Amino acid sequence: MPLVVVGSVALDSVETPKETRENILGGSAVYFSVAASYFAPVRLVGVVGEDWPPEHTQLLQSRGINVDGLQVVKGGKTFFWRGRYLENMNDRETIDVQLNVLADFDPKLPEECRRSPFMFLANGSTTTQLKAIEQSIGATLTVADTMDLWIRTEREQLEEMLTKIDGLVLNDSEAKLLTGEENLVVAGQKVREMGPRFVVVKKGEHGAMFFSQYETYVLPAYPTEKVVDPTGAGDSFAGGMMGYLAEQGNFEPTTLKKAMAFGILVASFTVEDFSLDRLINITREDLERRMEQYQQMLSF
Amino acid sequence: MPLVVVGSVALDSVETPKETRENILGGSAVYFSVAASYFAPVRLVGVVGEDWPPEHTQLLQSRGINVDGLQVVKGGKTFFWRGRYLENMNDRETIDVQLNVLADFDPKLPEECRRSPFMFLANGSTTTQLKAIEQSIGATLTVADTMDLWIRTEREQLEEMLTKIDGLVLNDSEAKLLTGEENLVVAGQKVREMGPRFVVVKKGEHGAMFFSQYETYVLPAYPTEKVVDPTGAGDSFAGGMMGYLAEQGNFEPTTLKKAMAFGILVASFTVEDFSLDRLINITREDLERRMEQYQQMLSF
Repeated sequence: MPLVVVGSVALDSVETPKETRENILGGSAVYFSVAASYFAPVRLVGVVGEDWPPEHTQLLQSRGINVDGLQVVKGGKTFFWRGRYLENMNDRETIDVQLNVLADFDPKLPEECRRSPFMFLANGSTTTQLKAIEQSIGATLTVADTMDLWIRTEREQLEEMLTKIDGLVLNDSEAKLLTGEENLVVAGQKVREMGPRFVVVKKGEHGAMFFSQYETYVLPAYPTEKVVDPTGAGDSFAGGMMGYLAEQGNFEPTTLKKAMAFGILVASFTVEDFSLDRLINITREDLERRMEQYQQMLSF
Repeated sequence: MPLVVVGSVALDSVETPKETRENILGGSAVYFSVAASYFAPVRLVGVVGEDWPPEHTQLLQSRGINVDGLQVVKGGKTFFWRGRYLENMNDRETIDVQLNVLADFDPKLPEECRRSPFMFLANGSTTTQLKAIEQSIGATLTVADTMDLWIRTEREQLEEMLTKIDGLVLNDSEAKLLTGEENLVVAGQKVREMGPRFVVVKKGEHGAMFFSQYETYVLPAYPTEKVVDPTGAGDSFAGGMMGYLAEQGNFEPTTLKKAMAFGILVASFTVEDFSLDRLINITREDLERRMEQYQQMLSF
C-alpha cells in the first residue's frame, strides 16, 4: 500500500573522527524514503532550494520514490546541517544549522499523498506535522517522529499531535525528556498514555523498544563493527518499519514486531557508509539475509 | 556438575534516590552463588570478618551453597562498600570502600573446590584470581570477571590471566578501557584475541553481547520498570549463566546462548529489590516462566 512521508530534505556536512564529507544528501524524509522504498511505493513531501542538485532527485526517483510533493523554492537555499561525531560515534554535536527554505515550509500534499493509507511525519516542526495531518484523508495509520527541540519549543502542539496519531517514534533521551521519567519502560508507557496507540523508543546502538497497551518488548540492534556515519539511522529505522507495514497492509502486533526488526536491519546498513551510499547499494535479498541472521541470533 | 566461585563477600550500604539500606548482604561471590544455586550445586570461596552475621551464612546454606571455603578471620572486619545510585539508577558513585579482611585474602580452595569442573572467578583482585586458578585441578571451564580498577592497576596480571581462562565477563566500559576501542563489537573481539575462547560484555539495562571466534551476538535485557537496587546485577548475571552451564554440563554454543539468557533473567529479578531480597524469593519456575516470555518477546 502507498506510504507518504512529510519531512526534511537536506544537504549535510558530516564530520567523523576519520573523515569529513561536505554537502551530502540528507534529511529525515530522504533517509526514510529510501529505506521504505525496499518495501512499498513511497511519496515524499518536502521542500528544497534552487541549489538542490537534480541528481539527488534522480536518485530518489531511481528508487521508485514519487517526488510530486517535493517543492522547489526559487531563489531559496536547501536546509543545511553540519554535525560532528565524537570518538565513540554515538554522541554528536550540531555545528551549524541553516533552516533556509525549511523555515517557511508549508507542506502541500498532492491529492494522491492526501489519500495515502500509510503516513509518516518525519522529524520536523510539530506545527508542520499538524498541517500535514489536517490534509490527510482517512489514513489508516499515521506515525510521527519528534525530537528534543520540538519537545522543548512546541510542547503544546506536540501534546495535541499525540492525540491525533496512531504511533510515535522517538529516541530514549527524548522519551525521558518528554515524560520526566528516567526508567525507559515507564517513560515509554507514559508517552503512550499521552495519546498514540503505540510508541517506539529508539536506543541507537542498543536497539529499540515497543510499547502498546498490551505489549512491551525490546529488540537489540544488529551488532556491527563498521559504523562509518550514524546520520539517518533513526530515520532509516522508521522507513524500514513503516515500509514493511505498508507492504503488509496491516499493523497487527505480529506485523509490527517484524516491521521493527526490519527497521533495525535497514538502519544497520545505513550506518555502514556516509549519506545514502550504503543504503542505495543493497537489495531486498540483502535485507532478507540479514533478517535470517538476526532471527537466528535471537533464537535459542 | 559442581561449580566453585571465588570472590568477594561483603556488607554493603546502598543509597538510592528513594531509600537507603545499611550493612546489607552483598559481594560478588554472594550474588553469584545465590543466582547459580537455582541451577547447580555451588561452592563459595571467600573471606569475612568476625562481624559477619551468622544468618548470612545460614541464608547461603539454605540455598544449598557449600561454604567450606568461606574463611572467617578472627578479629577482622568484613569487606565494606557504600554506593549511591543517581536518579537514572544506572550510574553510581562509590562513597566508601573498606577492604578490611579482603585486603589480605589468600584463597584456600578445599579439595572439593579444587576438583570442581566449573570455576568462576568473581570480581576481585587479579592476583587473587590467579592464586585460585593455580589451585584448580582440571577445571573444564574457567571463567572470570574483572573491573576497571584491576584493568588500571593489575594490567600485567590481567593479561596473564586472560591466557589461562576460557571465558571473560566484563562490562561495556571496561571492554573499551581494556582495548582502547570505542566500538563495542570491535572491543569484544579484541578482548577475545587476548586469550579467552569467549567474552561476554555486559551492557546493564541494554543486555549482553557474546563473542567467540565463530559467533558475535547480542541479547537484550528483560524490560523491567521496577528497578529498586541494581547492585549485584552483573554478578547475578554471571551466576545464572555459569549455573546453567554447570547444570547442563557443557558449554556448546547453543548451551552458552541459553545460559546467557538465563543470566539476563536472573539479573532482572535481582534488581527488583535490595540485596538478595528478591532473588532468594523466586523459584526455578519463576525463571522458566520469564524465560518463556523472553523467548516469546524475541520471536517474530
